Amino acid sequence: MSAAVIAVDAMGGDFGPRCIVPASLDCLSAFPSLRLLLVGQSCVLEQHVSAYKKEIDHSRLAIVEAEDVVGMDERPTLVLRGKPRSSLHVALEMVRDGQAQACVSAGNSGALMAISRHVLKTLPGVDRPAMCATIPAGRRPFLLLDLGANVDCTAEHLYQFAVMGSMAAQLQGIEQPRIALLNVGAEDIKGNQQVRLAADKLLLADDLNYQGFIEGDGLFRGEADVAVCDGFVGNILLKSSEELARTIGSKIEALFHRRWYLRVIGVLAYPVLRQLRRELMPEQYNGASFLGLQGVVVKSHGNAGQKAFSAAIRRAVLDVEQDLPQRLGARLAPLL
Amino acid sequence: MSAAVIAVDAMGGDFGPRCIVPASLDCLSAFPSLRLLLVGQSCVLEQHVSAYKKEIDHSRLAIVEAEDVVGMDERPTLVLRGKPRSSLHVALEMVRDGQAQACVSAGNSGALMAISRHVLKTLPGVDRPAMCATIPAGRRPFLLLDLGANVDCTAEHLYQFAVMGSMAAQLQGIEQPRIALLNVGAEDIKGNQQVRLAADKLLLADDLNYQGFIEGDGLFRGEADVAVCDGFVGNILLKSSEELARTIGSKIEALFHRRWYLRVIGVLAYPVLRQLRRELMPEQYNGASFLGLQGVVVKSHGNAGQKAFSAAIRRAVLDVEQDLPQRLGARLAPLL
Repeated sequence: MSAAVIAVDAMGGDFGPRCIVPASLDCLSAFPSLRLLLVGQSCVLEQHVSAYKKEIDHSRLAIVEAEDVVGMDERPTLVLRGKPRSSLHVALEMVRDGQAQACVSAGNSGALMAISRHVLKTLPGVDRPAMCATIPAGRRPFLLLDLGANVDCTAEHLYQFAVMGSMAAQLQGIEQPRIALLNVGAEDIKGNQQVRLAADKLLLADDLNYQGFIEGDGLFRGEADVAVCDGFVGNILLKSSEELARTIGSKIEALFHRRWYLRVIGVLAYPVLRQLRRELMPEQYNGASFLGLQGVVVKSHGNAGQKAFSAAIRRAVLDVEQDLPQRLGARLAPLL
Repeated sequence: MSAAVIAVDAMGGDFGPRCIVPASLDCLSAFPSLRLLLVGQSCVLEQHVSAYKKEIDHSRLAIVEAEDVVGMDERPTLVLRGKPRSSLHVALEMVRDGQAQACVSAGNSGALMAISRHVLKTLPGVDRPAMCATIPAGRRPFLLLDLGANVDCTAEHLYQFAVMGSMAAQLQGIEQPRIALLNVGAEDIKGNQQVRLAADKLLLADDLNYQGFIEGDGLFRGEADVAVCDGFVGNILLKSSEELARTIGSKIEALFHRRWYLRVIGVLAYPVLRQLRRELMPEQYNGASFLGLQGVVVKSHGNAGQKAFSAAIRRAVLDVEQDLPQRLGARLAPLL
């Protein structure tokens, strides 16, 4: 297949270009056929790029001017109308116009979603795109959606998320992904009306491996490959579980520092602690795919560091290689 | 103060009397002035009690006959009307009639809530009682409510939960509890309508130390003493965080078993691992108080073991000693 070209919103996120530029250079080294377009204020970006002594292949890294920057707390609708030359907007237009195959951003999620829908449009039949990512910390990783794009969801939305999540899991190599709806109990009388109605719809979908309701504990016990919920629940669940895992990691390290002899044991236990940190820290899984758009868009955590932002670019490369939007579209057409 | 008398629904939960009876005997040893009423099928309960060789002071432990048992997945409304002689119902009536000062149950949450409201009534001004518990695993423990009693909440409900949670935290010794509403972002444009309207109400409440919105990660970073959300979010958050902490604990133990020399280091690291398990495992915090009722009701996890169920009884003893319902009532009267 031809080389992937990815438009990177280089101004977004809490750390902006000083994290995004080195992460992009790392990815160029890791993927020899990758091409990146760094979109943003070119004078700023050129400075950051030239700060690297590395030999840069300029046929694979271009800077694209976009004078406006979207703040993390600006209202999506105002950004959409008021800042047509933001790095976010320009990056998405490059995907629409075929100059790039994916857009990656650590910027304002709401604005990214609004402008994505406006510029790229949704796949036929899809009401609302959903943010979907792999959650690693439990017994086995699972896909969770929606992660915050849609705080209020109808049963139809939850149903569409389940169909899209199932397809995304299949593309990641899970043959018959076990789909579950997140709820406060496993019995069919439990939960709010949206969840119960979505369950009714999913029970009728023969070609989905729908398992029923799953509770919060079942999620981390590995009872589903794809867990579906509204964006309010998903966002809180994602952020809380990441922080909880991080806190427990720090707690362990602190415990090994309480006494001198524990410190010695801590040094001996280093391989275990390193392995644990690797399993608990979500950096390597950073990058939520927007499912349901006519193009690949990946949202990085706003506070992603260099390594985490690289993971988001990697996620976009995979989504491009797997032709995610086209294959989702083909799968959805007969269902929706 | 006089001895607490607690009515224990001895038939509830996944393990029923075989866990609840020994947990009750443990509590009688731990609290010399406590009296317990074990409510349930007396023939079954007598067998379980007599299986213990321990000297039992029958002036402090009585068995109260209740022939019906409520299943974990029975519909609350059907249980309320159809099983007036269930252990749950009888235990709550003993609280209403002054024979006990609190009820503890590991049974069907929905039924416990419905029958509590029916038998004990809510405090004046309170629309819906909320389930509130201490969440331990993060940087510092915090109170979370609602934990599942109310899957759909209006702004008014969330506001009332905040007022009640603040009072509960004060009774636990936190002078100016920091109250926060759980949301998908910290900015005031974020979230669903209920959360935004509840924030408007809380901003006007001068005597609450309201901090604004809190995200999932802030929760485990210790940014609030009381976190308020609807029961759908709270239930999923509670169960997922408990299971995640448990999974990480098991993961660490498994890592120390991978190689023989790691096993040796694991033995050396035992004090650290034991301490960690103690901090991560939620058993000691089991027991959610129902806030907003005219009586003390504590819900134990359905799958609570002996130690965890003892913690729920302990929670009820504290709530009785602190006169929780009366003090909540006095605090709420001018506000609601």
